[in-house]
Amino acid sequence: MTNAFTTSGLFGDLFQDPEIAAQFSAATFFKHALAFETAWTETLMALGAVKPKDGQAALEAMRQYVPDLLAIHASSNTDGLPVPGFVSQLRERLKDRPAKAVHTGATSQDVIDTAMVLTLMDVFAILETRLQRVIGALARLDAHAQGEMMGRTRMQAALPIPVSARIQSWASPLRDHLERLDGVRAHVGQVQLGGPVGVRDVPAGQGDAAASDLARRLGLRIGPVWHSNRTPIVEVGHWLTLVSGSLGKLGQDVALMAQQGVDDIKVAGGGGSSAMPHKDNPVLAETLVTLACFVGIQNGGLAQALVHEQERSGVAWALEWMLLPAMAEATGAALRHTEQLLERITRIGPEHVD
Amino acid sequence: MTNAFTTSGLFGDLFQDPEIAAQFSAATFFKHALAFETAWTETLMALGAVKPKDGQAALEAMRQYVPDLLAIHASSNTDGLPVPGFVSQLRERLKDRPAKAVHTGATSQDVIDTAMVLTLMDVFAILETRLQRVIGALARLDAHAQGEMMGRTRMQAALPIPVSARIQSWASPLRDHLERLDGVRAHVGQVQLGGPVGVRDVPAGQGDAAASDLARRLGLRIGPVWHSNRTPIVEVGHWLTLVSGSLGKLGQDVALMAQQGVDDIKVAGGGGSSAMPHKDNPVLAETLVTLACFVGIQNGGLAQALVHEQERSGVAWALEWMLLPAMAEATGAALRHTEQLLERITRIGPEHVD
Amino acid sequence: MTNAFTTSGLFGDLFQDPEIAAQFSAATFFKHALAFETAWTETLMALGAVKPKDGQAALEAMRQYVPDLLAIHASSNTDGLPVPGFVSQLRERLKDRPAKAVHTGATSQDVIDTAMVLTLMDVFAILETRLQRVIGALARLDAHAQGEMMGRTRMQAALPIPVSARIQSWASPLRDHLERLDGVRAHVGQVQLGGPVGVRDVPAGQGDAAASDLARRLGLRIGPVWHSNRTPIVEVGHWLTLVSGSLGKLGQDVALMAQQGVDDIKVAGGGGSSAMPHKDNPVLAETLVTLACFVGIQNGGLAQALVHEQERSGVAWALEWMLLPAMAEATGAALRHTEQLLERITRIGPEHVD
Amino acid sequence: MTNAFTTSGLFGDLFQDPEIAAQFSAATFFKHALAFETAWTETLMALGAVKPKDGQAALEAMRQYVPDLLAIHASSNTDGLPVPGFVSQLRERLKDRPAKAVHTGATSQDVIDTAMVLTLMDVFAILETRLQRVIGALARLDAHAQGEMMGRTRMQAALPIPVSARIQSWASPLRDHLERLDGVRAHVGQVQLGGPVGVRDVPAGQGDAAASDLARRLGLRIGPVWHSNRTPIVEVGHWLTLVSGSLGKLGQDVALMAQQGVDDIKVAGGGGSSAMPHKDNPVLAETLVTLACFVGIQNGGLAQALVHEQERSGVAWALEWMLLPAMAEATGAALRHTEQLLERITRIGPEHVD
Repeated sequence: MTNAFTTSGLFGDLFQDPEIAAQFSAATFFKHALAFETAWTETLMALGAVKPKDGQAALEAMRQYVPDLLAIHASSNTDGLPVPGFVSQLRERLKDRPAKAVHTGATSQDVIDTAMVLTLMDVFAILETRLQRVIGALARLDAHAQGEMMGRTRMQAALPIPVSARIQSWASPLRDHLERLDGVRAHVGQVQLGGPVGVRDVPAGQGDAAASDLARRLGLRIGPVWHSNRTPIVEVGHWLTLVSGSLGKLGQDVALMAQQGVDDIKVAGGGGSSAMPHKDNPVLAETLVTLACFVGIQNGGLAQALVHEQERSGVAWALEWMLLPAMAEATGAALRHTEQLLERITRIGPEHVD
Repeated sequence: MTNAFTTSGLFGDLFQDPEIAAQFSAATFFKHALAFETAWTETLMALGAVKPKDGQAALEAMRQYVPDLLAIHASSNTDGLPVPGFVSQLRERLKDRPAKAVHTGATSQDVIDTAMVLTLMDVFAILETRLQRVIGALARLDAHAQGEMMGRTRMQAALPIPVSARIQSWASPLRDHLERLDGVRAHVGQVQLGGPVGVRDVPAGQGDAAASDLARRLGLRIGPVWHSNRTPIVEVGHWLTLVSGSLGKLGQDVALMAQQGVDDIKVAGGGGSSAMPHKDNPVLAETLVTLACFVGIQNGGLAQALVHEQERSGVAWALEWMLLPAMAEATGAALRHTEQLLERITRIGPEHVD
Repeated sequence: MTNAFTTSGLFGDLFQDPEIAAQFSAATFFKHALAFETAWTETLMALGAVKPKDGQAALEAMRQYVPDLLAIHASSNTDGLPVPGFVSQLRERLKDRPAKAVHTGATSQDVIDTAMVLTLMDVFAILETRLQRVIGALARLDAHAQGEMMGRTRMQAALPIPVSARIQSWASPLRDHLERLDGVRAHVGQVQLGGPVGVRDVPAGQGDAAASDLARRLGLRIGPVWHSNRTPIVEVGHWLTLVSGSLGKLGQDVALMAQQGVDDIKVAGGGGSSAMPHKDNPVLAETLVTLACFVGIQNGGLAQALVHEQERSGVAWALEWMLLPAMAEATGAALRHTEQLLERITRIGPEHVD
Repeated sequence: MTNAFTTSGLFGDLFQDPEIAAQFSAATFFKHALAFETAWTETLMALGAVKPKDGQAALEAMRQYVPDLLAIHASSNTDGLPVPGFVSQLRERLKDRPAKAVHTGATSQDVIDTAMVLTLMDVFAILETRLQRVIGALARLDAHAQGEMMGRTRMQAALPIPVSARIQSWASPLRDHLERLDGVRAHVGQVQLGGPVGVRDVPAGQGDAAASDLARRLGLRIGPVWHSNRTPIVEVGHWLTLVSGSLGKLGQDVALMAQQGVDDIKVAGGGGSSAMPHKDNPVLAETLVTLACFVGIQNGGLAQALVHEQERSGVAWALEWMLLPAMAEATGAALRHTEQLLERITRIGPEHVD
């Protein structure tokens, strides 16, 4: 869904992340879809299923291909997805060469899933860098943290803790998530190649060899067809939920620390109020809590995509598209906000009254 | 979140609704925010809290106001919402007139909530028309329905039912939802006017008179301040959930009826497959199920916005913005798809073999 | 699910409500199922579909019926629901009278849905009384409230508000929910009678007359068959979500007010700590927030039950059974906790230092 | 919540799993809580913080301890959790020995989290065995699978696939989940020891040594304090979601295959109907879909528990207790149902007409 309310500038970049969003754009999709089709034509040539001349012509056509998005838009309204229109455009450009030099034996899901995987690889790179920066900022904050503050359990003053302990409670889960990213990345980083009903038998009898060759060309791993096994996608959602959830804890803590009467933190440049100019609202901290709740809720939806009936479910597959990109973008925004929030902390721990 | 993947044309208009989306755009927001501020200045004038000359100048400035969205974008990154920047732009245009002719006594939440209510009134008008059209299309389908089909319970053939009975099982809940819309509309259709901490005391001692006057000017009802009582908003989400859920049932039924071996329906112009041109996928029907699941999941998130702490919660309020517009848009798309799907039905009930 | 962890006494009655739970017990189900079958036999007699002698024998057998729960348990493992086993037990008791004096023309869903409606009527009565008591307690608290406290927006001190304003922000939505209960009750309070595939044609040609007669005997309303239209059930979930959500806001506020440094409330008899005997944890207040989150989440699940395919969906129907009773019980517990919490408030508003 | 409706025998064991439920019972909790306290007293003795005589007396008292559940029930109503009452009962039994021989330096969360971890280890053992049996049953089914059936994508007949391919689409994700269990188990299988505010400093200066010793005695790993880092718990939820989701796909497929007109499977002993004795409902298959939806929804709630404010959140922690045991039990039931369902398959693939 568009949600212009939160993304058309009214709320700045609080609820969006242009850099992550760009990874899910039509332009990026075509780049990755074209990478798939190009590599696949090369694979078909390597395995002798497409003649060199036909293959070269197809590769040349793909190099020059500029997507006609309006036509895709129209065909998707009927087909439910952009691949039939996209393949049709590619094949129109083959002139007198046979259509089978492009996409033969592959299916829409092979293209979309592989393109999504390539997208996720780029998304992970962005998120990883940000996560490292946040962890670095927390380490710097910790290095300067001094003294004690009141530890609070169940919203009540308990016993004093080192200020450093609070900061480490934010950093520790994030370091774990960073470590676990490699596993998530490896698991989802596999090519999709199954053909129309997922039996991976193109060229006939050489399906696994073809898939391996394709994976190598795309820099991805190879495993069994995962048309209806959506575990890798759902695990990406899980990881995003963990990251945004841990940032939500940090945000909630900062908002509580910033309360008058508690005063355990000072953050410069909070949000203004239209009615009370004296106020300094912990906007970024609050936004972290909102984003955590948002991502967590979507995670409960993404789980429903596991019930992916038969060889391919239009229902469950489309649900992934509606949920996962928004989860990634929200997590990206949360990381960005956290970095900014940490930079603005001018004091952590109680104010010293001399 | 932006989710360019589903909204940048790749999937046509399957997962978006431009007409509904436009209601949540920045342009529409400013239209409604300006309506609020204009009416409020008029109210302040009527109650003698703003001098006629100052008020007239303010009204004139507001008539000529063109929002500087880039500046709003920047200020929202700090303030967390567009109102401080918006009010500041309005006041800059007052020249030598006092700033208090605009927004005095109101707060950001008064503007945003009232603008959201005005938006929802327009959204309801669109959805109501579509819902009526869907109900009409179902009545026409029912009028031509003949004979019997196998009734199915728990996914198993049970006993024959009139084809008409299946159609009525789709129409009946939708008629209920249409009836109930008036109640939802009335409940949420109230002005928000509470001031900074919701005590509604501007002009001093005349708060209720001011709120009544303001409501009358905006064509809204008046009730107690609902800054932290988010029931009306959550009830909108409930209604959208009911509508999209009932359409999901229709979509699921159509997809099941369209199965080879069941063949209880024929829908023209289904979706193509990149690998199997003979296929005729029930794309619109499947999309209805996806949208129902999507809206239902968001509904579980919107409920979390009821825990709106103290006089105003940035966390819970922002959650509404992230969820409700997407729920409205998804429901709008579902209604549109349903109408189109019903139009394409060329046969309902089993094929007659003579 | 059983969740012995929260319900076997370890956590007292924090996460359960024995009175509400009893309404969903097997014993209560059989009472309501028997009420249905008794009334239905009477209806069949009244309409001449069952002979007086057969009917009287059936009624007598039903009066003496004691359910054999172990046998039901076993049959449900196969049938997926208790009605086939239950009807079979009833019919065994008819001796030489024909089996058709019992349940003829009805189906499992007629029994279970109607029994659920009867249960909900009783649940509403309990919740209504509690809600009235909570509203009364808030009115008494308000009557004694004096002075001002700091209003807080976005977790920051804003401007002083009357203490009474905070209390009214808790009471106002609850009064709304109380008012709206009648509509919810009326909507769901309808008999279910459709027969095997929902066409309501038993006795043949007299289905509507039979349904009206049955409804009258059970004190319920009559409307169209709602086998696959789950709106009334989902609306019950919505109402429970609103009530528990509004109580969650109250709980969150109390927990925040009870913080050292804020000190806007004093609640006697909070929770102890195993390690810090000096602590006085706002356990009931916290539990209200947990229960609100829990109910809200289930609400997102209940929405999925709207996609109730064909004439009867085992999947979607069973989902209602898993979610709605827990939502009702959690809301009941929340009302109980709120009443107790309000009784324990010994001060609201800041402490006066003389 | 109790949900007697689905767990008091009315629905057999469809929505419950007595073996898993027993792991979350009060009795099991006390067993694990006592294991914690016993090991902790031994640790305190080993580190010289408790005198041998006092420690031996405490160990002897714990060996003879029989929990007074009624007293715990009462104290939990105040304290919000059973540990203060439990520790108090233990200490009463120490007679003239000092109370500090028991629980010194530990806090409620240390006991409950560690007991939960010990419970989860047992739950994993049960689920692992069942998962292995399901995978075995699928392998046997696959070994006997012959011929082809129609592959279906987007609910439409696509191209024939080997029957074996469909079976492998069920087995493949389950094998992955089984492999991944070791990682989940290792991650959550760590002792909790932080003390009142999580700084792990008991005995003073020897906190880490104490935690290591305690972990060794309990057969758990040692890591940083995770009082407010709920990642390990949430990851358990993720894994349960994956398992139940994959079983939901299997169930959905079976229900679709069992449709008249499709007839790709024959399952013996399905569910009866009270009105249509000829029917053979795919009850177990449907239940798998319901359970998958249920667990997935709870997963969206469990994510909210990541926002665990300050040193310990009563709100977020209690949310785990409400959700995780039900998720485990539902997954256990799904595995049990799947095994039974697979055993009942008498034919997979189309019926041969000779």
